[in-house]
Amino acid sequence: MKALFFENELRLIDYPKPERRDGEALIKVLMASICNTDLEIIKGYMGFNGILGHEFVGIVEECNNRDLLGKRVVGEINCSCGNCDYCVEGLKTHCENRSVLGILAQNGAFAEYLVLPEENLHVVPDRITDEEAVFVEPLAAAFQITQQTQIRPSDKVIILGDGKLGFLVAQVLALTGSDLLVTGKHLSKLSALKRKGVETRLIDDLGERKADVVIDCTGSSKGFETALRLTRSRGKIVLKSTVAEKIELDLTPLVINEITLIGSRCGPFDPAIRTLEKGLIDVRPFISEIFSLSNGLKAFSEASKGGALKILLRIN
Amino acid sequence: MKALFFENELRLIDYPKPERRDGEALIKVLMASICNTDLEIIKGYMGFNGILGHEFVGIVEECNNRDLLGKRVVGEINCSCGNCDYCVEGLKTHCENRSVLGILAQNGAFAEYLVLPEENLHVVPDRITDEEAVFVEPLAAAFQITQQTQIRPSDKVIILGDGKLGFLVAQVLALTGSDLLVTGKHLSKLSALKRKGVETRLIDDLGERKADVVIDCTGSSKGFETALRLTRSRGKIVLKSTVAEKIELDLTPLVINEITLIGSRCGPFDPAIRTLEKGLIDVRPFISEIFSLSNGLKAFSEASKGGALKILLRIN
Repeated sequence: MKALFFENELRLIDYPKPERRDGEALIKVLMASICNTDLEIIKGYMGFNGILGHEFVGIVEECNNRDLLGKRVVGEINCSCGNCDYCVEGLKTHCENRSVLGILAQNGAFAEYLVLPEENLHVVPDRITDEEAVFVEPLAAAFQITQQTQIRPSDKVIILGDGKLGFLVAQVLALTGSDLLVTGKHLSKLSALKRKGVETRLIDDLGERKADVVIDCTGSSKGFETALRLTRSRGKIVLKSTVAEKIELDLTPLVINEITLIGSRCGPFDPAIRTLEKGLIDVRPFISEIFSLSNGLKAFSEASKGGALKILLRIN
Repeated sequence: MKALFFENELRLIDYPKPERRDGEALIKVLMASICNTDLEIIKGYMGFNGILGHEFVGIVEECNNRDLLGKRVVGEINCSCGNCDYCVEGLKTHCENRSVLGILAQNGAFAEYLVLPEENLHVVPDRITDEEAVFVEPLAAAFQITQQTQIRPSDKVIILGDGKLGFLVAQVLALTGSDLLVTGKHLSKLSALKRKGVETRLIDDLGERKADVVIDCTGSSKGFETALRLTRSRGKIVLKSTVAEKIELDLTPLVINEITLIGSRCGPFDPAIRTLEKGLIDVRPFISEIFSLSNGLKAFSEASKGGALKILLRIN
């Protein structure tokens, strides 16, 4: 099968079709999308070698569970052992022995087929298109914020970053009724959000504003320091950026201002599916372009450009 | 009056006796103690110039409130404006216009007299000696941990740092019933805690242990990175260290492991006074030496040595 494989460099190669083990499903990938994490992996993050891709929608071709067979599904990306302390506590995304689709010790979704444990799969309702369904995984990561910490309707919230994740987080947090501002570096990207009724501001025009909650979706190591400057005393910073570099930091303002910093990663799929189905979240304006898998390398080069929003890959 | 004054260097000088304004109390300082923050200020932290010292006990010589006159008191160190947003919310320690005793725009306690707002003062019960009373301020900072976040009796807790603050935090957290370990670099200091029944371990002998909660009391910029390594996924780090330097950091593990980092500063005085009075906290084993104010420079040089615990100054 065709696959986008990373080892030192990204290449489109012919790769053996995967075989499922008992309890796993073989999935024919319909569509996938490129995430900032994919771009970071290419820079060395996680030291991953293999088929990239973890945001996808596909059809179950083989599995044990008859309810899943032939169904259109999306999949949670963390594959857990079921036996370690975290699994026993129900914290499967933190399994000590986990593999992660297209990120850690498991081939990903930028290929004609993938395998995932059946328990990771969620059937996609008919009202959600393929183009929308690939957003379920990053949208779940956005819902992880309100899963981990309370955002009060009266809170002033600043979202740092006008990229792919920032857009989803903005839509999720808009549902809380909070006083929301998205800030970034790209006027063109911010306009797309502005058209959705979200208040936006270029980062350089932000002034002395302070927020109760600041969400770092910059995907940059510098995001945290900006967040620290924008957060009021006793406020919260939610950190979403995973990057492949160290940076010089002074944590003293966090102590003096008694700020709470919350690391946030993968989230619950069901709320993402429910809100997409109900039209509470609209992802369509944020799709920049759709490429075929054969044009995967071009898709990556587009996704790496500053101005790009979500780049999708049509696979089968 | 005699005072330990810092401007480029620490000197023992003769300084005018302060005059109280309406609503303030003039306090004759009986005893004070040297905190790690004092040592950091001498290295440049906060850019403070003035009389150092913020941990003290004294006698109210002049004030408006008759209930305070002649009483032995300790004092909260943040002097707030009463009008800013933080003050209106009751977050006086975060007042935007605050001065801080011996730390920010207000002369401190290493002098024969000091002034503080009456509302900052707490009368010290007779059962608490002067030597114990100087610990109320740092003990309150230790109680700020359980004020800000829940420590469960079943939690595994690691306290990083066998210094002055680590000792107080260890005693406060021991009261939660949690599974507590204090780790540090000094066998002699750890033994003092061991004698109080607290489990201790040299940092190099810690192995692969992970905790639900890690409290950084190292007073070092390197404490956070160690804390990050010792904290389990979805665990908490409480950061107590304020330092005068930046350090290279990688926050990605905090995101991947969804760790919460809580900055923690000044705390509530009443619990500190109650637990000292009831003998639930015993500070006496942690007093290294008592100097007179005239020997203040020698006291600072002792306090700067790695092996020292709490150094007290007898002032009047």
